[in-house]
Amino acid sequence: MSITPAVKTILEKYESDNPGVKAKLAQMLMHGRLGGTGKLVILPVDQGFEHGPARSFAINPPAYDPHYHYQLAIDAGLNAYAAPLGMIEAGADTFAGQIPTILKLNSSNSWATTKDQALTGSVEDALRLGCAAIGFTIYPGSDHFFELVEEIKELRAEAESVGIATVIWSYPRGGELTKEGELALDVGAYAAHMAALIGAHIIKVKLPTDHIEQKEARKAYEGADWSKQSDRVAHVVKCCFDGRRIVIFSGGAAKGEDQVFQDARDIRDGGGFGSIIGRNTFQRPRDEALAMLDKIIAIYKGEA
Amino acid sequence: MSITPAVKTILEKYESDNPGVKAKLAQMLMHGRLGGTGKLVILPVDQGFEHGPARSFAINPPAYDPHYHYQLAIDAGLNAYAAPLGMIEAGADTFAGQIPTILKLNSSNSWATTKDQALTGSVEDALRLGCAAIGFTIYPGSDHFFELVEEIKELRAEAESVGIATVIWSYPRGGELTKEGELALDVGAYAAHMAALIGAHIIKVKLPTDHIEQKEARKAYEGADWSKQSDRVAHVVKCCFDGRRIVIFSGGAAKGEDQVFQDARDIRDGGGFGSIIGRNTFQRPRDEALAMLDKIIAIYKGEA
Amino acid sequence: MSITPAVKTILEKYESDNPGVKAKLAQMLMHGRLGGTGKLVILPVDQGFEHGPARSFAINPPAYDPHYHYQLAIDAGLNAYAAPLGMIEAGADTFAGQIPTILKLNSSNSWATTKDQALTGSVEDALRLGCAAIGFTIYPGSDHFFELVEEIKELRAEAESVGIATVIWSYPRGGELTKEGELALDVGAYAAHMAALIGAHIIKVKLPTDHIEQKEARKAYEGADWSKQSDRVAHVVKCCFDGRRIVIFSGGAAKGEDQVFQDARDIRDGGGFGSIIGRNTFQRPRDEALAMLDKIIAIYKGEA
Amino acid sequence: MSITPAVKTILEKYESDNPGVKAKLAQMLMHGRLGGTGKLVILPVDQGFEHGPARSFAINPPAYDPHYHYQLAIDAGLNAYAAPLGMIEAGADTFAGQIPTILKLNSSNSWATTKDQALTGSVEDALRLGCAAIGFTIYPGSDHFFELVEEIKELRAEAESVGIATVIWSYPRGGELTKEGELALDVGAYAAHMAALIGAHIIKVKLPTDHIEQKEARKAYEGADWSKQSDRVAHVVKCCFDGRRIVIFSGGAAKGEDQVFQDARDIRDGGGFGSIIGRNTFQRPRDEALAMLDKIIAIYKGEA
Amino acid sequence: MSITPAVKTILEKYESDNPGVKAKLAQMLMHGRLGGTGKLVILPVDQGFEHGPARSFAINPPAYDPHYHYQLAIDAGLNAYAAPLGMIEAGADTFAGQIPTILKLNSSNSWATTKDQALTGSVEDALRLGCAAIGFTIYPGSDHFFELVEEIKELRAEAESVGIATVIWSYPRGGELTKEGELALDVGAYAAHMAALIGAHIIKVKLPTDHIEQKEARKAYEGADWSKQSDRVAHVVKCCFDGRRIVIFSGGAAKGEDQVFQDARDIRDGGGFGSIIGRNTFQRPRDEALAMLDKIIAIYKGEA
Repeated sequence: MSITPAVKTILEKYESDNPGVKAKLAQMLMHGRLGGTGKLVILPVDQGFEHGPARSFAINPPAYDPHYHYQLAIDAGLNAYAAPLGMIEAGADTFAGQIPTILKLNSSNSWATTKDQALTGSVEDALRLGCAAIGFTIYPGSDHFFELVEEIKELRAEAESVGIATVIWSYPRGGELTKEGELALDVGAYAAHMAALIGAHIIKVKLPTDHIEQKEARKAYEGADWSKQSDRVAHVVKCCFDGRRIVIFSGGAAKGEDQVFQDARDIRDGGGFGSIIGRNTFQRPRDEALAMLDKIIAIYKGEA
Repeated sequence: MSITPAVKTILEKYESDNPGVKAKLAQMLMHGRLGGTGKLVILPVDQGFEHGPARSFAINPPAYDPHYHYQLAIDAGLNAYAAPLGMIEAGADTFAGQIPTILKLNSSNSWATTKDQALTGSVEDALRLGCAAIGFTIYPGSDHFFELVEEIKELRAEAESVGIATVIWSYPRGGELTKEGELALDVGAYAAHMAALIGAHIIKVKLPTDHIEQKEARKAYEGADWSKQSDRVAHVVKCCFDGRRIVIFSGGAAKGEDQVFQDARDIRDGGGFGSIIGRNTFQRPRDEALAMLDKIIAIYKGEA
Repeated sequence: MSITPAVKTILEKYESDNPGVKAKLAQMLMHGRLGGTGKLVILPVDQGFEHGPARSFAINPPAYDPHYHYQLAIDAGLNAYAAPLGMIEAGADTFAGQIPTILKLNSSNSWATTKDQALTGSVEDALRLGCAAIGFTIYPGSDHFFELVEEIKELRAEAESVGIATVIWSYPRGGELTKEGELALDVGAYAAHMAALIGAHIIKVKLPTDHIEQKEARKAYEGADWSKQSDRVAHVVKCCFDGRRIVIFSGGAAKGEDQVFQDARDIRDGGGFGSIIGRNTFQRPRDEALAMLDKIIAIYKGEA
Repeated sequence: MSITPAVKTILEKYESDNPGVKAKLAQMLMHGRLGGTGKLVILPVDQGFEHGPARSFAINPPAYDPHYHYQLAIDAGLNAYAAPLGMIEAGADTFAGQIPTILKLNSSNSWATTKDQALTGSVEDALRLGCAAIGFTIYPGSDHFFELVEEIKELRAEAESVGIATVIWSYPRGGELTKEGELALDVGAYAAHMAALIGAHIIKVKLPTDHIEQKEARKAYEGADWSKQSDRVAHVVKCCFDGRRIVIFSGGAAKGEDQVFQDARDIRDGGGFGSIIGRNTFQRPRDEALAMLDKIIAIYKGEA
Repeated sequence: MSITPAVKTILEKYESDNPGVKAKLAQMLMHGRLGGTGKLVILPVDQGFEHGPARSFAINPPAYDPHYHYQLAIDAGLNAYAAPLGMIEAGADTFAGQIPTILKLNSSNSWATTKDQALTGSVEDALRLGCAAIGFTIYPGSDHFFELVEEIKELRAEAESVGIATVIWSYPRGGELTKEGELALDVGAYAAHMAALIGAHIIKVKLPTDHIEQKEARKAYEGADWSKQSDRVAHVVKCCFDGRRIVIFSGGAAKGEDQVFQDARDIRDGGGFGSIIGRNTFQRPRDEALAMLDKIIAIYKGEA
């Protein structure tokens, strides 16, 4: 497999990473129907942990089976599949070599009494399960943010040393942030920047609104028009070392198809690197999900 | 000893586990009068730690002796015997090779001021005592849940590396859960799912009621009839990777024989893998306990 | 030195312990004037840490010198001498080989603001000082109980690995326990049972009163007459694996000779394994202390 | 490269440090346009972490790119460039060997709910990225001060062992310090002294005001005139082992050019070792920043 | 150098310590003008950390320079010099072999919000800097006392293993102790005793008043006359294993010469082993300080 120029350009920006990590980034960037384009679509399935199994899968019962998600990601031609330990283990042998996997190393749940997460897997697990990357959530703003940062600092270093890439989910919450503020443009851009600063190879954030949360940041944003989502995407990408890091966006709760497609177009037009899309796929019947992913891929290819 | 097809089918679902762990699961699944059927009945004796010795054993004084429980499990033809360090040590040599043992690695007690448990044993202990598995309790919902998860993550990885299986007792409690909620169907199913996600080979939960605790989960459960206990068992099993993990059920406090037998039938009919039954056996005279276990085994064999 | 049948019977109950640990138990059980009888009298001197030096020794000034206590235990023909690091170090060379020693690894003090103890020694210290056992206090009921348990779990495993025995002081206190409850029969029996469960080779508890503290435990105790101290001793021994573990009793604060002797008779008659007696000896003039110990030994021999 | 007498005099004061560390101090002291003079000007870019990317870089958009800062420091002929992990990694290969770098190992952010910092890098990172020094912030006065001290104690020892120097940012805040007190002369001098005591090779503090915060310290300061900034600088230098340690000063928020130049003159005249100047450079257009740095360097050379 | 009988008698009481540690005790006991007498005078300079540099040194500006203190201790013919890491490092090479040094491993400061200390050095530091001993402060009574004890337990064991002695500063404070109680006779004696119990080779306490703080301790002190300071010194020495451990006394804040000399006479007459005297020397002009130390040494020699 020879690397395309688009992918090569991206990899060259990871100038301090070792060939092992770059090979894993290349593995994801060159896989699936978007392989070689420099764009990614990833299927994440950690909803069972976060919201419970019935809330996640009762609407589409075949999704109770971990194999369902592996197969969905493979059949849709996605770049990678991300899930917690148990979900990955339950199919890692059956689907070995068929799709790059991201082992999500920490998780929260609906009953958590703090804005924190529990470690549920390790870099050793990622190695023995053949994963391309580890995934880790940080909560900028939370009382536990410093601890989360110190955990991922250790895990990222360990992963790097064995040639595994690091994906950081950067979700502002807790502390003095308002609910509206969690999705604010300045907050999301800051959260993405911190993920870059602590060494994320791939940064996952939510699509931001045009709200500006921090009083001290208003001056930096005033005078520009932030009403277009693609401009907001472009700003977040700029805040990740001026585009030197891969930034992908999630769309949040299940919503209408049209909005999902519009999000993908805005990410593409703003220079984002792709989508990570879970509930909007596995909570739909498989045929509908495949059709939706087909169109999203077409959008990223500039064909829709 | 050749593995039966029923057991082989189960073992094949543990596709990421090493032969050492699978051999231990096979050891328990092939042992005793249910050996080879794919069903298990396990004797757990951690009541002395949890409730104190007199409350546990005064009603049947021979049970003060740790040897009593080993012998009861052996004579009843059970699959395994589970207990904390001191109890296992007190008979491990006398009964070596006569029954698979599960070393319970953490325990709470009646005077605990937090919803937490203390580690009282190690994987090294399990190895030197010849145990087939480690046992560990998590309290989903508790303020200490994340810590408990991180403890069992480490212990499970260490056990796996030396070919010992992991049994997780998943008991929701603490935090914002109501007393009624601890036994709710949605809560029990979520607790079982989290145990599966963090890598349990065998999941132990309580038989759930038809109460739905979480407001956000109601939509996922409405429209179905949850009044039959066997349907609730089936739902919990589905929430453990669609049946890819062994789930066993406990019956709680001592109760009438008829209810105990009905529970076993419901577990069987719902596709559960068996019972873990303590107070209902060792708090009865030995003859009565053996007769009860004889009938439970017959139920799981489909003969009663 | 050949082991007597009485001691051999005791040692055989430690069926999971290695020969190194058993040799240390034998060393204490075969030493002194009670050597070979299966009974023990131990001198503990941790009062200086717990209550301060003047409160402990001003009444008998020669006791300020650590050598005084070694010599007292040797001259009285006791089985062992227990003390914290500094006290043991101050005489370990002078009295090497003359009396088995127990290194007390944690201590509290009069000014403690929590129901906890500080580690003040290690298994390595016990090894280099030639000790037969480590000693450790747990506070069942305290907010720090789980931490204390996890500390002794580690220390006990380390001590076992180098052939050193473990003595646990199990003193209920803190949390929701009342002052009266700390000495209650149900509480003391539960505390002794937990020490056995976490792997103590020798369990040290206080002589319990006939008070029953826990509402939930009353049913288990009602219908029996607990007014005789020897019956209470027998119950505690039963709660330590039906007599499979050595249980010794302390008498608490200094008191009249007659009561001290009666306590020893009750311990003996109830099947207890002996006394650990500190303030009642070193806070008396040496001659009186030796005479008292002489009589206690006679009681355990059945001669008084 | 032969070391100048001015630099040699400084290095000789680090009498307990190994040649590896001294070589790194020499590397910084001999680099750039001030190389060999014994003075330093360093560019720090941790504003993105501390205040967010837009507040830091929107005013001068090319500064979103990490390469911008490397190039600015190189083109201005500075002694070193300091930044957190992600910023250093993003240019470490491109600019290898062109400017000494200082890896900032901990960082806070605008949303921190405590006066603390999170570790975001390691000595291993500093080694693999070819850095001359590690940087670390302590907050004297904060509830977390002791923890921060214990962290840098470990990191400093590790860095020393591999021949990497340690730069400590000592910023009083938190606890009972008032906002005015954070910049007080007595407070800044004390903060600098503590950094020296814990082993900093280079100490970075803010330019102090003439306010005296601590009641107990007033007597030590009264009778002298602290109105001249250069005298205050001299006092801080005296408090760092009478000039035996390199002390550099930061100027705080962006301000007018004249004030920036006056600060540099006062640092020079007070015997300070140089400036660490961030926002006042990268938040100006590149040409203005280069001109400003050119003049600052001239000031330190005594030419302006 | 042959050891004098007076020193040999002291060393023999350290019967469990290895030759390496004894050699370091001998090094201090045989050094300086009191060398061989069994008495010690030590110069401690940790005031800069505890009170800040200006409060410590402004009154005698040459003392800002770490070399000043080394030279003062050498010229006065003292037994040892004690200081935190930075102070020792700043002169360790220049004065190597000229005076035994004690590396103070933990420190507090004027802004501490808890009764605790931060670790600022290590046993490895003591080794590479050629120190004879480590120094460590404990705060009996404080909420952090147990943690401090566990820290020094580890450090003392590590130091012992490499032949370095341990000096413990035992300063009661915090918790329920009153300000007056911190200096009470019963409190100081208890604090000294605990230092001995945790293994201090040299114990440093403050000279106690005749106040008795603890209600429970009054009985042990009543009936004796504690008005003479030398009797109080004798009591503290008795509480350190009846004189088996070296106990030295500090005098606290700077005070009149006559009182300093009387303190020294009382320590000598009560059987104390010497003085540790900081502010009363380095806060006086060098000539006055040398004269004062000359007289103190004469007092300990019985010549004044």
